[in-house]
Amino acid sequence: MRFNRPDPADVRRIACIGGGLIGSGWAASFLAAGYDVIVHDPDPGAERTLHRTIETAWPSLVAMGADAAPATEPRFTTNLEEAVADADFVQESAPERLDIKRDLYHRLDSTMANDVVIASSTSGLLMSDIQAGDGNAARMVLGHPFNPPYLMPLVEVVGGRQTAPEAVDWACAFYQAAGKHPLKLDREVPGHVADRLQQAIWNEILHMIAAGEATPEQIDASIVHGFGPRLAIMGYCLLFHMAGGEGGMRHFLEHFDPAVADAWTRLPSPPITPELTEAMVAGCARLQGERTMEDLATLRDKALVGFLTHYRAVTATTS
Amino acid sequence: MRFNRPDPADVRRIACIGGGLIGSGWAASFLAAGYDVIVHDPDPGAERTLHRTIETAWPSLVAMGADAAPATEPRFTTNLEEAVADADFVQESAPERLDIKRDLYHRLDSTMANDVVIASSTSGLLMSDIQAGDGNAARMVLGHPFNPPYLMPLVEVVGGRQTAPEAVDWACAFYQAAGKHPLKLDREVPGHVADRLQQAIWNEILHMIAAGEATPEQIDASIVHGFGPRLAIMGYCLLFHMAGGEGGMRHFLEHFDPAVADAWTRLPSPPITPELTEAMVAGCARLQGERTMEDLATLRDKALVGFLTHYRAVTATTS
Repeated sequence: MRFNRPDPADVRRIACIGGGLIGSGWAASFLAAGYDVIVHDPDPGAERTLHRTIETAWPSLVAMGADAAPATEPRFTTNLEEAVADADFVQESAPERLDIKRDLYHRLDSTMANDVVIASSTSGLLMSDIQAGDGNAARMVLGHPFNPPYLMPLVEVVGGRQTAPEAVDWACAFYQAAGKHPLKLDREVPGHVADRLQQAIWNEILHMIAAGEATPEQIDASIVHGFGPRLAIMGYCLLFHMAGGEGGMRHFLEHFDPAVADAWTRLPSPPITPELTEAMVAGCARLQGERTMEDLATLRDKALVGFLTHYRAVTATTS
Repeated sequence: MRFNRPDPADVRRIACIGGGLIGSGWAASFLAAGYDVIVHDPDPGAERTLHRTIETAWPSLVAMGADAAPATEPRFTTNLEEAVADADFVQESAPERLDIKRDLYHRLDSTMANDVVIASSTSGLLMSDIQAGDGNAARMVLGHPFNPPYLMPLVEVVGGRQTAPEAVDWACAFYQAAGKHPLKLDREVPGHVADRLQQAIWNEILHMIAAGEATPEQIDASIVHGFGPRLAIMGYCLLFHMAGGEGGMRHFLEHFDPAVADAWTRLPSPPITPELTEAMVAGCARLQGERTMEDLATLRDKALVGFLTHYRAVTATTS
């Protein structure tokens, strides 16, 4: 089976299944990118959430380059079949329950063209479990957004065991065309990538508060005024590559002392094997590309100055 | 003993001990705030690092409001006694070895006025260990900065077992006057607060790469385009308070499923006891203050739009 109907760049009509905060956030994002959007939710009350989300999101979307108003009005329906009838792509953001999602996908099998790609926003489920036993599993992919979905660029994309690789590639090309930043993962893993990292930090936060080591205010201040702003610019691999000086990540890992590091968190480090070192070093070299360490420091500082200045201005007027 | 010489707002002369990246970063920060700065390092080569750091940092500092050039030239000396002779405050950024720091503090005891506060930039050591057995321990505090120290506002401040509470308060008042964001911690803990959280995420990253679950590029993309930008605006306590909708953190914790969350990271969650829930809920209420959830969403989105726009502009010209 090929997933080339239509070409990712020719998508016009998108069905958003599920009209909660994530589903309606997706709808706002797709509207701003110029698509025709129809939202389905079995609860008629979700129509209000949809309009409120669009109203909240639009000034930000305009600031990011969208038109002053959506080119087309978003449509809402409680009828699933109507929502997907002519859809070129479906973004599913139904409740996070395996039975609900599986029923939903089975119903879609009988009401939609077989080769239309369906992407699930699920955080907590794996596509392999959602699609298991479904005759139309090949077109089902994960397309996991970040809150708020109308602003954050990242979409994690990966297939389940039965997903056709072409469906994953089609979804990546579509999200790219829609102005998103698709991140194609090599394999399924619970929590995907970003939520795993977030959960590690959140669990350490819960432990620290439970142990009386810090208060929520101290935790949040340490993030916002400390390490948070850098993470809007570079991830930890590149940041710690820079922290290694001219020796980069290799120097950093050679001087990494698990005995000290493990005392700083309840999560023990893995052994720093030669294989792990090589994987890290090679990845950091690719991340750095042709840029010198000085180029990276300049990028970091320019971005930080802008962020800190902007944060100061925004908090002065709204906090 | 009282630490009121001089008043924190009247500090003029600062000695930075250690001229590496952190020490010279501190020097740039203090120069930009208008202080007289003298830097000591036993290695004469550190003078070059100092001048290079100031040169690199200054355009950013100007963009943050500093004068076009430092009001006074920074001085450099390989002579420790000369550096601290007339200092109103000492920021110590010597190598991260307990024996080196202890020797250094003992030498300072005999060459400096007893009531001048000395703050250590240490990440990996506890002030209680550095000061143990030192007759002048009362004036020694932790003052832990974030890289790059000339831009990042946060300074974690806490005393060791023998530190006078007045010294901690003096240091907080001084950092505030110097344009920093002092975060006074209630107790010493290895890694302080921010580095513990960072280490949890870093150890999970190392595990994921060792297990082939993600590459360094995928990790960094998931941070920069995903959850990173939000952390420049709000910490996880306030973010997850918002994620709980109108029910806030209480609702969030009631629906927190450790079985799911623990599958997402190798760090198990603590039990969500009533005490932990109350500590989190009360802290989030204080963090929220008088602001509605809608106010918080507006603040988040305004800041995100500015960051994303700025990041786009900076990366277009420097990457």
